[in-house]
Amino acid sequence: MTLARELARYAITATNAGIPAAALHEAKRSLVNWIGCAVGGSTHPAVDKTIAALLPFAAGNQCSILGRHERTDALHAALINGLSAHVLDFDDTHLRTLLHPSVPVASSLLALAERQPMNGRDFLVAFIVGVEIECRIANAIWFAHNSHWYITGTAGVFGAAAASSRMLGLDEDQTTHALGIACAQAAGTREMAGTMTKAFIHGRAAQNGLLAALLAQQGFTAAESSLEGPHGFANVLAPERDLKAIAAGLGTTYEILQNSYKPYACGVVAHPVIDACIQLRNEHQLRAADIERVALRVSPRALELTGIQSPPNGLKSKWSIYHSAAVALVDGTAGEHQYTDERVNAPEIRALRASIAATADAQLKEIAAAVTVTLKNGKTHTKVVEKVIGSAENPMSDGDLENKLRGLAQGILPEARIAALIALTWRVAELDDVTQLARAATPE
Amino acid sequence: MTLARELARYAITATNAGIPAAALHEAKRSLVNWIGCAVGGSTHPAVDKTIAALLPFAAGNQCSILGRHERTDALHAALINGLSAHVLDFDDTHLRTLLHPSVPVASSLLALAERQPMNGRDFLVAFIVGVEIECRIANAIWFAHNSHWYITGTAGVFGAAAASSRMLGLDEDQTTHALGIACAQAAGTREMAGTMTKAFIHGRAAQNGLLAALLAQQGFTAAESSLEGPHGFANVLAPERDLKAIAAGLGTTYEILQNSYKPYACGVVAHPVIDACIQLRNEHQLRAADIERVALRVSPRALELTGIQSPPNGLKSKWSIYHSAAVALVDGTAGEHQYTDERVNAPEIRALRASIAATADAQLKEIAAAVTVTLKNGKTHTKVVEKVIGSAENPMSDGDLENKLRGLAQGILPEARIAALIALTWRVAELDDVTQLARAATPE
Repeated sequence: MTLARELARYAITATNAGIPAAALHEAKRSLVNWIGCAVGGSTHPAVDKTIAALLPFAAGNQCSILGRHERTDALHAALINGLSAHVLDFDDTHLRTLLHPSVPVASSLLALAERQPMNGRDFLVAFIVGVEIECRIANAIWFAHNSHWYITGTAGVFGAAAASSRMLGLDEDQTTHALGIACAQAAGTREMAGTMTKAFIHGRAAQNGLLAALLAQQGFTAAESSLEGPHGFANVLAPERDLKAIAAGLGTTYEILQNSYKPYACGVVAHPVIDACIQLRNEHQLRAADIERVALRVSPRALELTGIQSPPNGLKSKWSIYHSAAVALVDGTAGEHQYTDERVNAPEIRALRASIAATADAQLKEIAAAVTVTLKNGKTHTKVVEKVIGSAENPMSDGDLENKLRGLAQGILPEARIAALIALTWRVAELDDVTQLARAATPE
Repeated sequence: MTLARELARYAITATNAGIPAAALHEAKRSLVNWIGCAVGGSTHPAVDKTIAALLPFAAGNQCSILGRHERTDALHAALINGLSAHVLDFDDTHLRTLLHPSVPVASSLLALAERQPMNGRDFLVAFIVGVEIECRIANAIWFAHNSHWYITGTAGVFGAAAASSRMLGLDEDQTTHALGIACAQAAGTREMAGTMTKAFIHGRAAQNGLLAALLAQQGFTAAESSLEGPHGFANVLAPERDLKAIAAGLGTTYEILQNSYKPYACGVVAHPVIDACIQLRNEHQLRAADIERVALRVSPRALELTGIQSPPNGLKSKWSIYHSAAVALVDGTAGEHQYTDERVNAPEIRALRASIAATADAQLKEIAAAVTVTLKNGKTHTKVVEKVIGSAENPMSDGDLENKLRGLAQGILPEARIAALIALTWRVAELDDVTQLARAATPE
C-alpha cells in the first residue's frame, strides 16, 4: 500500500468518536485564531489587489470573502481567505516544522461548506484530519526542506486535498488520486519572503488542494506513489526525509495538539526577542530616548530568516528582528499595527532600529533569545527567553485567543458581530450549518 | 539588474520588426501543431473530467474550449486548452531541454485574446517572446532538473507569464513581479508520468502564468530575485545550472528555431525506435506473425523514461518503448490511435510486445536507436536511426504539419472548418482579431 493510499484511507474513515477531547478543543482554538487572522488580514492591500484581479473570474457569489463585502466562488474563496489569513504572518504554526496548519485546511473547507451543506461536527473532524495529514507529511521532510521552500505551500496542499476529499465524499481511490494531484501543485520558494507572493503561496495551497479533490471526484488520475516514488514529493523536494514519520501512530497521536498561536504578527523565530524586549520595557520602564544600544543573541536560523536590518516596507519588516525588537521596546507590543509601512518609517523606530545589533549563537534553541539593553546612563539589563508565549510550553489561553480575534476584527466587523463570531466558533461542533461562521465573519 | 528584470524588459520591448522571418515562420508552424494537438486532445477522458469538475466554476463563456462545444472564462480556458494540447503527448518539444514550448504560451495567450482585443501580429510576437523566455530559463537548468521535474511545469510558467504580461500592457516593474509570481507556482514532478496529472501540470503552467500577470497588473508584489536569489528558482529547483544561458544573446538568437514537432504521439525519446520499426516494416513487408523477436538498443535516458514493459492503459503506453515498437511494426504508424486503452489490450500487440527486449547503450545519442528484428525463418534485419523525423535535422514539412492537424481534427471539426483553421493559422499575422483562430477550432 502506498503512503498516499494509507493517508487516504485514514482521511475518509476517521470518526469524531475516535478523536480525543483535547484535540477537538485545540481544533476550535485553531479556528478562533484562523478566522481572526482572516478577518484582520482582509483589509491588507494584497487582498485588495487579489480581489481586483480575480473578481472578474468569479463564478457567482456563493462564498464569503471573510471580513469583506465582496463574494465569490468556492475556488477563489479558498485562495483569497487563505491569503488573507496569512498575510499578517499572524496565523498558527506547527512549531517543529514551521508549517501553518489552518490556512490550507480551514480556508478550503469553509469555502466548500458554502457550496454544499456541511454541519459543524463534520467540518471539525475534516479540519483535524487535514491538519493531521499535512503535519505528518511536514514531519517527514522539514529538516532541509525549510531552508528553501515554504512548507505550507508544499505540504499544506495535501491537507487541503484530504479534508476536501472527505467532505466531498470521495472514496479511497479518488482520495489517493486527489493527494497525487495535490503533489503536482506543491510549490513556493522562500525567495518570496516579505512580498505579497508569500501569502499567495499559502492561500494557493488551500485552493490547489480543493481543486485536486474536485478533479479526483470526476475520476481524474494521478500517481499513487506521489509521496514516496522515485520522482515523487519526498525524493524531489526533500534531500533529507524520514518517510516513516508519515504513518506512524496515525489515528492515535494528534498533531493538532502541537499547534501554536502567535501573540505577535511576524515569523515565530522572532518571538522570543519580542517577549524579552516587552518584559525589559515593562520591568524597567524603558523609554527609547534612554537607550544607547541593544544586543540580541538569537539562533543562527532566526538570524538567517529575520536578518533584514532596514526593512523597506511593512511586509519586509516581519522579517527584521531589528524592527521587531524596536517596536517591542517602544510600543510594548508587536501586533498587526507594528508591521505597517507607516510604523517602519516612523523616526523613533528607525533611530532605535539602527542601534540594535544581533549575533547568532548556535548554543541557543531555535525558539529562544537573549536581549541586553544598554542605557545612556551606562546601566545594562538582560533578559533570556526560552519558553515563548504562544508555544505549547507557554500557551496563549482561550481568552488570549479571543482577545486576539477581537483586536484583529475591530473596525472591520461590527462589535456585536465580533462577539457572535467568537461564540459561534467555540460552538462550531454544534452548528447544523457551518456557513454561519462565514456569515458572522463578514460585515453584513 | 536581476535576471527577471532583464527578461521583463525584453518581454515588453521586443518588436515584430526585430524578429527574423524564419522565427516568425517557425512560430506559425508551432501554432499549427499546437492547435491541432488541442483539438485532437479535446475528446480525451482527461479533458471530459476536467470540464465536468471546473465548468461549475466558469465565470461566463467568453472563451473557447478548443475542439468542444462548451465555453468558459480565460483562466479556465488556459488550463483546459493547455491540458488538451498536451494530453496526447503529441505537442512540440524544445529538444535540448525537453520543454514543450507552445502549451503554456499559446494556451494562455489565446485565452487572453478572447478576453481583450488582440491582433494576430501582436499575438505572434508575444508568442515568440514567451517561448524565448521559457526556453532560455530551461536552457539554464535542464541538466539534472529533468530527472525529477516536468520542465514545462517549472520553466513554462515563466513563458506564459511573460507573454500574458506583454499582452496586458504591463510595465517593466509589473512584468518583473509577474515572473516572480510565476516562480512561486513552478511545480510538477515526474512521478505523474502516464497519468492525467501529467497533462494537468502542463495546462496549469499556462493558467498559472496568466494568473501571475493578472495579479501583477494590480500591483501585487513578488521577489525581483526570483530566478537567481539564494532561495529562488535556480538554487532551489536546479542542482546544476548555467544562469548565464538565460540572457546571453537575448533578442539576437531565437529558441523557437530549435522547436521540433512529433510525428508520433508519445515521448520524443521513443521516436527513433518508432522510425526504425516503420522503416523495417515497410522495407521488408514485415508481418507480426513472421516476427520471432525484436531487440531495441536505445540511450540509457530513453530506457529510463520509457521502460514500462506491460502498460496498463493508453496514457501509460506512451512511456513504453515496447508498446511503441509493437504498434509501429504492426500499424506502420504511432499516432493518437495507437496509444488508446483498446490498442494497448489488442491481442496481436500484446503478443508482439512480449517478444521485444530493450538494452541501454551509453554510446548512443539520447535521440537515436538501433532496432534488430529476427524473423521466425531465421533472417534478421537491422535499422539504425540517428536523425529522427521531426527534429531540426530532419524536420516535418509544413505539409506534414497540416496533415497532422487534419488527422487530429478529423471527426471533431467539420471538414470545411479544418481547412479554414489551417489557412487561418498560417495567416495569423494578418488577422485583425485573433479570436478567429479559436472560433475555427471549435465545432460551431
